[in-house]
Amino acid sequence: MVESARYPLARRPDTRLASGTFDTWGSDLRSAIQGELDAFLEHRCVSRLADSGVEQAVTVLRNYLSGGKCVRSTFMYLGWLAGADDDDAALRAAASLELLHAFALIQDDVMDESALRRGRPAAHVTFAGWHRGRSLPGSATRFGESAAVLLADLCLVWSEQMLRESGLSADELQRCWWRYDDMRVELAVGQFADLVNDAGALPTMDAVMAVLRRKSGNYTVRRPLELGAALAHCDDEIIEGLGAYGELIGECFQLRDDLLDVTGSPALTGKPAGLDLAARKATSVVVMAHHLAGSDARRELIELTRLDELTSHDVERLRALVLGSGAVEGVEHMIDERISRALSYLGALDVSSTAVDALADMAISCGERAA
Amino acid sequence: MVESARYPLARRPDTRLASGTFDTWGSDLRSAIQGELDAFLEHRCVSRLADSGVEQAVTVLRNYLSGGKCVRSTFMYLGWLAGADDDDAALRAAASLELLHAFALIQDDVMDESALRRGRPAAHVTFAGWHRGRSLPGSATRFGESAAVLLADLCLVWSEQMLRESGLSADELQRCWWRYDDMRVELAVGQFADLVNDAGALPTMDAVMAVLRRKSGNYTVRRPLELGAALAHCDDEIIEGLGAYGELIGECFQLRDDLLDVTGSPALTGKPAGLDLAARKATSVVVMAHHLAGSDARRELIELTRLDELTSHDVERLRALVLGSGAVEGVEHMIDERISRALSYLGALDVSSTAVDALADMAISCGERAA
Repeated sequence: MVESARYPLARRPDTRLASGTFDTWGSDLRSAIQGELDAFLEHRCVSRLADSGVEQAVTVLRNYLSGGKCVRSTFMYLGWLAGADDDDAALRAAASLELLHAFALIQDDVMDESALRRGRPAAHVTFAGWHRGRSLPGSATRFGESAAVLLADLCLVWSEQMLRESGLSADELQRCWWRYDDMRVELAVGQFADLVNDAGALPTMDAVMAVLRRKSGNYTVRRPLELGAALAHCDDEIIEGLGAYGELIGECFQLRDDLLDVTGSPALTGKPAGLDLAARKATSVVVMAHHLAGSDARRELIELTRLDELTSHDVERLRALVLGSGAVEGVEHMIDERISRALSYLGALDVSSTAVDALADMAISCGERAA
Repeated sequence: MVESARYPLARRPDTRLASGTFDTWGSDLRSAIQGELDAFLEHRCVSRLADSGVEQAVTVLRNYLSGGKCVRSTFMYLGWLAGADDDDAALRAAASLELLHAFALIQDDVMDESALRRGRPAAHVTFAGWHRGRSLPGSATRFGESAAVLLADLCLVWSEQMLRESGLSADELQRCWWRYDDMRVELAVGQFADLVNDAGALPTMDAVMAVLRRKSGNYTVRRPLELGAALAHCDDEIIEGLGAYGELIGECFQLRDDLLDVTGSPALTGKPAGLDLAARKATSVVVMAHHLAGSDARRELIELTRLDELTSHDVERLRALVLGSGAVEGVEHMIDERISRALSYLGALDVSSTAVDALADMAISCGERAA
């Protein structure tokens, strides 16, 4: 055990935000983030995971840290750029959010019993397979879930370690830890509230939106943006403006996720469709369908969402009722309205046009994404 | 959301270590630690947990934070006292380890499917009961486990927050975070390795001791002691000496736990006996039994530990074979030998006699405990 010597920095191309269009900088930024993650993994995680005795653990972790959209780290870095220039330490700090996200995804996949993540086997599925291939005692499924939960724990610890070791000064970080803690608590409490979320209880749209913000909206856009901006010494007015934009775009992000469960293509999303429907989740689009459906369809919706277990036929019928109700168009309208409000917040902000342009690009791309 | 204003300190009796015998200071110290935990819970956790929608969450957390032996926080505070005087901030920092321990216990209970913790229902059992009492969709067992894992996540975040907000200076903390991260990673990786631990594979005693140190020994005694001493600016020689003592006493602690699984009284330990036996864990006492048993008994031990599932009759037979082998006496001898070596490390340390006396008391009490 040696004292925290800095590990070598990732060698990365000199990407600067102002150097191109959104397509260019977005993809360059993601490469740079990936470079930082790879370096941290190599120098902080690989040798520790070897002690687990499960050789696949490193590959599983790599799978969760690659091929994603780096949305949270991108927003955190854009928050930084609202108040400061390009900076390697800030980029590394932003990249740490991808480890936090890996923690959330690995645990989510266990809780939802999802077999796939980005088209590859989920962590618990890989670990269960490893167990099954040996003559170990006990249930392979249980082993897979326990191992996945422990890998998620490690990601939670490492994400914070990567932030702390980013190269930002202790003073800068000290001022922002409360925001970081708040975000992590909000995420876990939001997941908790989501477990209790039940379409059978027919919650109001307001209640659904409150859970949605806590569960993922804030943690995807608003908090990362605020965190980056606060680290860059932005004043309160700017942080609040970015927060208002971020809340709306975070909602759009999750609303789009809700829609993709009903309309998405597994080939693009990398996960089966209809998982929320099958779990009787009161998602935005399902609650909207209850509001918009005619009385016969509504009765049928209520019956279906009160069943103890849904067959695949029930799920198909539920999807057809949701599609027939006009709820998809209704939620699309909610998204459009939020993007337009978010853009007007953005226009009123006194920050560099580079940051504003990039955030506008992000808003529009969040509204349009198909995966 | 307001910036990290210090919450009011716990009102606590003015307990000073030098003021009494071990029985007195040990119990006074535990009260003071409990006071700090109660204050943190009140000011940082209660209102956040309310948003989970599960009203029992606070009670569950309180159960995991009370009635324990505060071993980790006591060792961390004794590490501090090896280099500095009594201090409220250091006490609060030490108390934070009980939140880390709550994280580990709540998750452990899920993974081991333990129904009881300190004689009360485990977190996942309480949450499953809450779910069952409502007509929520899905499996109550699955809900209970997911809710418990999320509560554990919160404990992991809160433990670090409590340490950061303890009142120790950012500089002091900055020098020690790597130790803290190391400890947490070691804990999770140790649990991981323990999942793979299988008596059917007949590991060597050395291999068993390596897992035992990583899984719990280091995290119970050695790392807390080192952390406290490093925060108190002890020099490397003292930290190493305390570490050597701590490694041995941590081993004793876990060896005693292994024994209690075979010989313990559920009325005292607050959990069912024979859980490790039933799970075919290669604990120290089981591996020792394989070494010491005569050839007939040994053959029977091997047969039993290779069964896919053990009935309660099998577990009883396994217990009888372990008891009959002399393994309990063998492990008791390992404990005695370690305590005596630990005391000699202690005698060579150039620290206050207060700290040395207290650590000697702790060594002896770890060797003797019945729960």
